[in-house]
Amino acid sequence: MSDTAARRFRPPAVPQVEVRGFWGPRIDVVADRTVGILFDRCIAAGTLDQVDPAVPVPDLRIPFQHGNSVTTQMFWDSDFGKIIETAAYALHRRRDPALERRIDEVVDAYARLQAEDGYLDSWFQRMRPGERWTNLRDCHELYNMGHLIEGAVAYFHATGKRTLLDVMARCMDHVIATLGREPGKKPGYCGHPEVELALVRLARATGERRYLDLAAYFVDERGRSPNYFDVEAEVRGERSEDFWFKTHEYSQSHLPVREQDRVVGHAVRAMYLYSGMADVATETGDTTLVEPLERLWADLTGKNLYVTGGLGPSQANEGFTVDYDLPNESAYAETCAAVALVFWASRMLGRGPDNRFGDVMERALYNGALAGLSLDGTKFFYENPLSSRGDHHRWTWHRCPCCPPNIARLVASVGSYAYGEAEGEAAVHLYCAGTADLDVGGGRRLRVVQETDYPWSGAVRLTVGLDAEADLALSLRIPAWAEGPTLSVNGEAVDLAAVSVAGYARLARRWSAGDVVDLDLGMRAKRLYANPKVRQDAGRVALRRGPLVYCVEAVDNGPLLDGLSLSPTTEIRHEFVAGLLGGVVALSAAAETDAADWGGDLYRDAPPDRRPTALQAVPYYAWDNRGPGEMAVWLRACAPDAKRDGTARS
Amino acid sequence: MSDTAARRFRPPAVPQVEVRGFWGPRIDVVADRTVGILFDRCIAAGTLDQVDPAVPVPDLRIPFQHGNSVTTQMFWDSDFGKIIETAAYALHRRRDPALERRIDEVVDAYARLQAEDGYLDSWFQRMRPGERWTNLRDCHELYNMGHLIEGAVAYFHATGKRTLLDVMARCMDHVIATLGREPGKKPGYCGHPEVELALVRLARATGERRYLDLAAYFVDERGRSPNYFDVEAEVRGERSEDFWFKTHEYSQSHLPVREQDRVVGHAVRAMYLYSGMADVATETGDTTLVEPLERLWADLTGKNLYVTGGLGPSQANEGFTVDYDLPNESAYAETCAAVALVFWASRMLGRGPDNRFGDVMERALYNGALAGLSLDGTKFFYENPLSSRGDHHRWTWHRCPCCPPNIARLVASVGSYAYGEAEGEAAVHLYCAGTADLDVGGGRRLRVVQETDYPWSGAVRLTVGLDAEADLALSLRIPAWAEGPTLSVNGEAVDLAAVSVAGYARLARRWSAGDVVDLDLGMRAKRLYANPKVRQDAGRVALRRGPLVYCVEAVDNGPLLDGLSLSPTTEIRHEFVAGLLGGVVALSAAAETDAADWGGDLYRDAPPDRRPTALQAVPYYAWDNRGPGEMAVWLRACAPDAKRDGTARS
Repeated sequence: MSDTAARRFRPPAVPQVEVRGFWGPRIDVVADRTVGILFDRCIAAGTLDQVDPAVPVPDLRIPFQHGNSVTTQMFWDSDFGKIIETAAYALHRRRDPALERRIDEVVDAYARLQAEDGYLDSWFQRMRPGERWTNLRDCHELYNMGHLIEGAVAYFHATGKRTLLDVMARCMDHVIATLGREPGKKPGYCGHPEVELALVRLARATGERRYLDLAAYFVDERGRSPNYFDVEAEVRGERSEDFWFKTHEYSQSHLPVREQDRVVGHAVRAMYLYSGMADVATETGDTTLVEPLERLWADLTGKNLYVTGGLGPSQANEGFTVDYDLPNESAYAETCAAVALVFWASRMLGRGPDNRFGDVMERALYNGALAGLSLDGTKFFYENPLSSRGDHHRWTWHRCPCCPPNIARLVASVGSYAYGEAEGEAAVHLYCAGTADLDVGGGRRLRVVQETDYPWSGAVRLTVGLDAEADLALSLRIPAWAEGPTLSVNGEAVDLAAVSVAGYARLARRWSAGDVVDLDLGMRAKRLYANPKVRQDAGRVALRRGPLVYCVEAVDNGPLLDGLSLSPTTEIRHEFVAGLLGGVVALSAAAETDAADWGGDLYRDAPPDRRPTALQAVPYYAWDNRGPGEMAVWLRACAPDAKRDGTARS
Repeated sequence: MSDTAARRFRPPAVPQVEVRGFWGPRIDVVADRTVGILFDRCIAAGTLDQVDPAVPVPDLRIPFQHGNSVTTQMFWDSDFGKIIETAAYALHRRRDPALERRIDEVVDAYARLQAEDGYLDSWFQRMRPGERWTNLRDCHELYNMGHLIEGAVAYFHATGKRTLLDVMARCMDHVIATLGREPGKKPGYCGHPEVELALVRLARATGERRYLDLAAYFVDERGRSPNYFDVEAEVRGERSEDFWFKTHEYSQSHLPVREQDRVVGHAVRAMYLYSGMADVATETGDTTLVEPLERLWADLTGKNLYVTGGLGPSQANEGFTVDYDLPNESAYAETCAAVALVFWASRMLGRGPDNRFGDVMERALYNGALAGLSLDGTKFFYENPLSSRGDHHRWTWHRCPCCPPNIARLVASVGSYAYGEAEGEAAVHLYCAGTADLDVGGGRRLRVVQETDYPWSGAVRLTVGLDAEADLALSLRIPAWAEGPTLSVNGEAVDLAAVSVAGYARLARRWSAGDVVDLDLGMRAKRLYANPKVRQDAGRVALRRGPLVYCVEAVDNGPLLDGLSLSPTTEIRHEFVAGLLGGVVALSAAAETDAADWGGDLYRDAPPDRRPTALQAVPYYAWDNRGPGEMAVWLRACAPDAKRDGTARS
């Protein structure tokens, strides 16, 4: 599709990767339980009634909010899009005719709903006829279409059925005819980015350049002056200053994207936009997008990212506030935002392997995103705080159910994020037992078989499969956290420094079937400290091991977790506990805690007595799976020293 | 007024006490600047237009909130009541004919507004005629009347003018005829307690027992079943479950007051109610109120009180949440609530001196309450957080201007809180240079002259004045924080332990004019630690000296105050700095701070480098008087010890 000869890494399609190990059972849970739950709850909410033109137009089910400009019911198509996508991945995992029939039923309703001219949006067609394309700022038309595109592409890959793919391609042809810079078109774009990255997937699936061009148009037009959303508001007879969120930073349309250098506004929108920008840069070879993307990446990862890979601290805008503002208990850190950061990071790998992107992708995946799904696949987090007094719990559904299908589709497609394929090259971004069949160009397939207990162990064996010997570069991510990693090929040690390119070991050689690569990443339990500008974490320490960030829970440590403190020098032990949370490596350490036997005293001249205790930490992703209780990621980093040396206090 | 012979301490009227020292200039600022500001801003808001029947009925100025049940405009009479009260105290301080004319103008408007039958409430008479006594839960009629009573009593004491006093007495006679348990009356009471304590003041000023009985009725009837507010809501055609605040805990009417044992709901309402309960207990000798008051006192001071004497952590209900929930940055801790705690504590002294009450009164007065008024008397805090990232500032006015006149009237009448007078007894609750003329019964006046630099020094000399020798008990508060206090009478040491009664030195002897008492409280800068159940203060330390709680501000210490830490053993130095914040004792200490030179790193394996620094703390009441910046009361209590002993970090 591109005229340039740029190096271009793409993720393999989900069916190219068979996943076992850590992620295998998680995908099974999504396939066995979560997908069904998503369908059931969505349909129970009335979503299909809104789509199906054969049933009467339903009453409004969900009230308006934000000055009556938005009801979450406007986004129902996106829920179906994500559910179809999740279900498609599940079907690849295991055939399920009943599930396939449910999808076909929804697809059929959409096919019947689609307008003569290709337009498709159940809210506008059924609930607000005549109002289409009048409020791109608030009403998510293109966002909905984008998610349906993603569902269509995944379903096509999983089943070969192209009804929805054709519907969505026709819909995008209508969009091409409606939106754009040409005379007679509206120079609009969506208030909620998403369709950009979806269009790139559609272009890849169909081979049609025009969908890539439409994505590039949406990226390029965004934030130009005069702001489209202001113009559009005036046409509606509204004053642009009455916009609920006050600033177009909310939707990252305050400036042309190439002039943006701070992550602002709604976090999910930001991540989806940057994902689309990165996709467009990869596919078109437009290098003018690279520098803005690097600036935004530095701003996010250097100033605005939770240690869990969560992001967007504020509930008010579901997004960013000021630099280094990372409150723990009130963290919004929407599951969707961490999922979307995985999307962005994976797309930043499009220009080639780089562990800056791979490491953050892994951190967001294993922590901020995965926390959003309960171990049994039936309950969800919307917000992901880094501490709780015991009043934050997983729910079974939400008035705005964007997160459940988002984390479900990510888990179900995780194999696709683990690899990159390019002309004469392949990359392993994530380690996980399984088998990938990668297209390395020229009709060649490179099979990579991973054997590993990752993330519980840092030892990975990769065995190569090839029909014939081939000169290929295989790049393996060496995470920045790896402690003295070692690498060998067919038992012969490789000098990592000599082959290291952007944090990946790049093994460019003639490969044969049966070649074996042994990698040991050197995984140790370690402490993490936050930049002192993060005032909420001052004097505090977090624990991690490999890609996993840990937390303490009251169920293991008793209440009053803020009383716990960990000396900077205590040994952190690790142990795999099969019966704990589905089998995890738990961390433990000697610690101290405040003795809370103060009776009726609220304040005293002397500090609390300290008593020794044993601390146990579990992976953050697994918290709140054992009943209510306090949780904390950031522990106090020291004990008051007065008690240690026995000197007088005050 | 009472039939009992119970020991009963009352505060002297403001004109009985001449205040110099710390409080003198503060009262002058209120008299010279704040009172005028209060009048100007209130009248500019349209308040007098609502009162004066000679002007046309104005339009609604302030929108409704809370499901359209409340506009702050309903409370405008209370603003006038508090302003008149403040102005009355100011007039005692210095005659000001222009100010007196302003008051007379408002009083005249109220006199003309008062209904034939005595009813008086400008909102209902002018804005909602015909609706009086239909919504005691939300509409503050009795609250407004209570504040006007307090203004009337103060103005009568200051000037001898009794127009407003007579108006309010007649208004209360109307209330007596309207509300009560007798047939034909409504068994109501106010959603916002206040009138109870005001009625006790009215009873004392007029000598009329019926006003005390009305106060006792309001106390006794509150929270009985069926709940009056539910009955009333049904009469209005509303469902009681639609009440915005969901629970009658909000107004402490969820249970009869004698069954209450937890401080709940709106903090100011709670404090006013308990104040009224204590007043009624003192004046009627009703000992059945004592135990509930003690339970509530223990619950507040043992579990729910900020170290500043602030209270009510939550903005949502302007009140209490769960025990030990004392967040610092998001603390609501309304100025009015700390002021009202001073009221309650002072009234708990009605049954006799007890430093449990006197100490808390002093703490709330000097910290949580006084912080609400800028040093120049022109700007105000509504919320009083215990830490700020630099975005919390004093404002010049507020849509709900309850706090400015509340702190102003407290400051202007502080002399009244410093003493208690009883039959044959007197007590000194607060130390401050000045002269008090106390009524100790039998026509005797006891003059107490205090010479002291308190709160900067703990040394106090008291000189007695009497017309004739008298056997009297003079009780002097010995704060629990005093370090090795000493006491002498006419140069002769007194064994404090021998004369100590409930934390007061009770000097029962024959007193003569010219007797001199020298008291040294032993004032030292000290550390305070919070109960480990207060998770927000775990591992943290606060500084205080005498009654003052200190804070650090960025203007003295630079930004990133969370980086500061104070070892438990470092010496805390104190020094009076005349040029600082109008003259304060500042505290200083060697401390450490995080070196914030992390460049683009957000997280690292090693803790921040620590560097030595000097910490300066200033009294909390004086913060945010030198421009915007961070502030913190609770400092990190130690430095990471890894940096100290130079050992490796994990």
